[in-house]
Amino acid sequence: MLESLKQQVLEANMDLPKYGLVTFTWGNVSGFDKESGLMVIKPSGVPYEELKTEDLVVLDLDGNIVEGNLKPSSDTPTHRYLYQKFPGIGGVVHTHSPWATSWAQAGKGIPALGTTQADYFYGEVPCTRRMTEEEVKGEYEWETGKVIVEAFENIDPIQVPSVLVHSHAPFNWGKDPHEAIHNAVVLEEVAKMALHTYQINPNAKDMDQYLLDKHYLRKHGANAYYGQDK
Amino acid sequence: MLESLKQQVLEANMDLPKYGLVTFTWGNVSGFDKESGLMVIKPSGVPYEELKTEDLVVLDLDGNIVEGNLKPSSDTPTHRYLYQKFPGIGGVVHTHSPWATSWAQAGKGIPALGTTQADYFYGEVPCTRRMTEEEVKGEYEWETGKVIVEAFENIDPIQVPSVLVHSHAPFNWGKDPHEAIHNAVVLEEVAKMALHTYQINPNAKDMDQYLLDKHYLRKHGANAYYGQDK
Amino acid sequence: MLESLKQQVLEANMDLPKYGLVTFTWGNVSGFDKESGLMVIKPSGVPYEELKTEDLVVLDLDGNIVEGNLKPSSDTPTHRYLYQKFPGIGGVVHTHSPWATSWAQAGKGIPALGTTQADYFYGEVPCTRRMTEEEVKGEYEWETGKVIVEAFENIDPIQVPSVLVHSHAPFNWGKDPHEAIHNAVVLEEVAKMALHTYQINPNAKDMDQYLLDKHYLRKHGANAYYGQDK
Amino acid sequence: MLESLKQQVLEANMDLPKYGLVTFTWGNVSGFDKESGLMVIKPSGVPYEELKTEDLVVLDLDGNIVEGNLKPSSDTPTHRYLYQKFPGIGGVVHTHSPWATSWAQAGKGIPALGTTQADYFYGEVPCTRRMTEEEVKGEYEWETGKVIVEAFENIDPIQVPSVLVHSHAPFNWGKDPHEAIHNAVVLEEVAKMALHTYQINPNAKDMDQYLLDKHYLRKHGANAYYGQDK
Repeated sequence: MLESLKQQVLEANMDLPKYGLVTFTWGNVSGFDKESGLMVIKPSGVPYEELKTEDLVVLDLDGNIVEGNLKPSSDTPTHRYLYQKFPGIGGVVHTHSPWATSWAQAGKGIPALGTTQADYFYGEVPCTRRMTEEEVKGEYEWETGKVIVEAFENIDPIQVPSVLVHSHAPFNWGKDPHEAIHNAVVLEEVAKMALHTYQINPNAKDMDQYLLDKHYLRKHGANAYYGQDK
Repeated sequence: MLESLKQQVLEANMDLPKYGLVTFTWGNVSGFDKESGLMVIKPSGVPYEELKTEDLVVLDLDGNIVEGNLKPSSDTPTHRYLYQKFPGIGGVVHTHSPWATSWAQAGKGIPALGTTQADYFYGEVPCTRRMTEEEVKGEYEWETGKVIVEAFENIDPIQVPSVLVHSHAPFNWGKDPHEAIHNAVVLEEVAKMALHTYQINPNAKDMDQYLLDKHYLRKHGANAYYGQDK
Repeated sequence: MLESLKQQVLEANMDLPKYGLVTFTWGNVSGFDKESGLMVIKPSGVPYEELKTEDLVVLDLDGNIVEGNLKPSSDTPTHRYLYQKFPGIGGVVHTHSPWATSWAQAGKGIPALGTTQADYFYGEVPCTRRMTEEEVKGEYEWETGKVIVEAFENIDPIQVPSVLVHSHAPFNWGKDPHEAIHNAVVLEEVAKMALHTYQINPNAKDMDQYLLDKHYLRKHGANAYYGQDK
Repeated sequence: MLESLKQQVLEANMDLPKYGLVTFTWGNVSGFDKESGLMVIKPSGVPYEELKTEDLVVLDLDGNIVEGNLKPSSDTPTHRYLYQKFPGIGGVVHTHSPWATSWAQAGKGIPALGTTQADYFYGEVPCTRRMTEEEVKGEYEWETGKVIVEAFENIDPIQVPSVLVHSHAPFNWGKDPHEAIHNAVVLEEVAKMALHTYQINPNAKDMDQYLLDKHYLRKHGANAYYGQDK
């Protein structure tokens, strides 16, 4: 069942240590199959190097386990909520990558300061509000999904495929697990450069909107001209 | 004698360079066997890559060498004191890992700013007071143990398994040498992120207590639900 | 056609990940053959590890493709403009290397603070002005070349072989692709050290002009005495 | 001639990239043989990976080449001056290692903030004054040696085996080339941690003198007790 998606999810989980995005098991990747409405996710607490496709857990978006003998990642309800509310995404990546996590701990979104960010994110990467005591004591991981979606009230999640969860760490997504990993790597890079930019110039201003438009649209949408024609 | 513990201590010492926690021989790991009341520790000044189990030194907690031809780590009295005063710990790791050491040199504890820390430390990682001239000129390494324990007067060392020794560097512990190494890696990561958090937002506030509770208790204690059932 | 130059351009592109100058495909190298007036450049969006000499694109400086089945790098017009306006250069390297890019995002040139910079750059590495909306909405990559050249109105590009494009990233050049890569590596190193220098001492002053002269001229020009006689 | 010393100098030069102390050929190591009064040094501009013992240059301390077909490092007069004025040293290492170089560019010595430094340096690592125009335009590399020695007017170079040359980079030494490399690695580590210490706590104070005494003398001199008895 879903063998191709499982393979993608396995590879994307193994990309986490490859790209330096995780320490120990501090991250997880899932993939979503639109046709069947099912998602595949990493089991909780299993080291990446021991992971096999048969360890992956298949669930529906209500959280019912359809296949798998291990407990799914404790962050599964957050993934589920994002698949429900962000139509068009097919992969979700959660990490504690250190630069992005530092912004999350600081409670600040990452402004668009240059074309590196503009090539992937159509503007600032937002940071959620702090969660309330009720949310944390309730269905915590599900509520985490809700505060993420709340932060995108006026942002298109397809155009800004990452978020910083306050006092926690980033979540990233994409059309498939591979693209979600790609965005997680970019986020870490722009998080690092944004801090250094402000250290060089505390009064650094955001990039011009027309430059943001140019770079984002050079790579995305109908008039993109970066890369080879597919 | 204590072959299994020796193997653990050897492996944990070799994890120090593997995880980037040490330069040269700037770190040491010991393990404690509750039943026999004996500890096993790295010999002083021996490079990790040359270390063999027969080089390890076995001592009782009064410092009497029970087995071994080499001098034990000069930090042995600190390890001994911690085993005496922190019941339930079975491994101690000392490093000069650079981010944690920078906090120690700054004389500041590492506040709980996010869930990465909360998953392992139930609150701030404390920094000891400066040692007095009498303490330093006396039984220095033993006195180091005493100022560490003093810093935990109101903290449960099982719940906060690391400390920063002022003007010196961190000590970490755990139920066995492997867990102590694990905590040393986490400490280095949260030390790095805490500095960057304050650089992004000098007014960053600690995480909410209820979020700290949630994450710590999600992984520790009777109601933990992270990872696979054992 | 131009087999030797193609080989150089291929190797220089593969040096980008080797020297840690790029994430994913965020960089490109070209080479210019003065005799034929033709340039060779990386195709757009192709990963370095898959790149072969037959993938490279050969163009004249008016942008006409002379050989190659793939689309050239989207930054090709910037490379072309630099070859037209900076006589004597034979290689151009564009990266988003993180330290130099942070200076570009900050909109600041990198002052000459020490001999590491003086050995390669005869003074400050300039940052361009922000591009106007007209420039960005027009022939953007060509206009990028123009603002670079504008920044060198009073600087000899042979003596300062790098630039920071505002809100974007660095371009570097040299007498051939290999030297351009070399300069890109140096730029990244001096960008990192310049930030740390100011963090150590916010009032750090530029190096003395006579020391700058000494080091630059020790390695360049008629009286150079560094290295072996060729 | 001096085959053992040549082998040591070769290995120490190859340790420069191994320990991350150099980019390209930005560093050099020499060794001094007290008995013959001769020194062995790296040739100028030769990559470490191509270096062989027969490439090394043998000179007396007046600069006369005794053996070798290549030009010695351009920094040779600085090495020679140090061997003349600092009796007891047998190895000199020059690098542009980035953290130490940042302190040199900032024109600041590295204060003793913790035991990592105290284990190797008996106090602050000094920074020289800026060199005058006359010194730079004169016998520059020889004058560099002179400003270094001037900075040690009240410091024992055996107890503080490194210096930062203003607007330039560090020089390190030791009883042999191996120990000089060791000190160069330590310097880079303490340079990094000192900056981070001040970033965590801008009012961080130096370590207590009695703690500095304790750690330095625990590893050096008649009463040392660190490591195994030799």
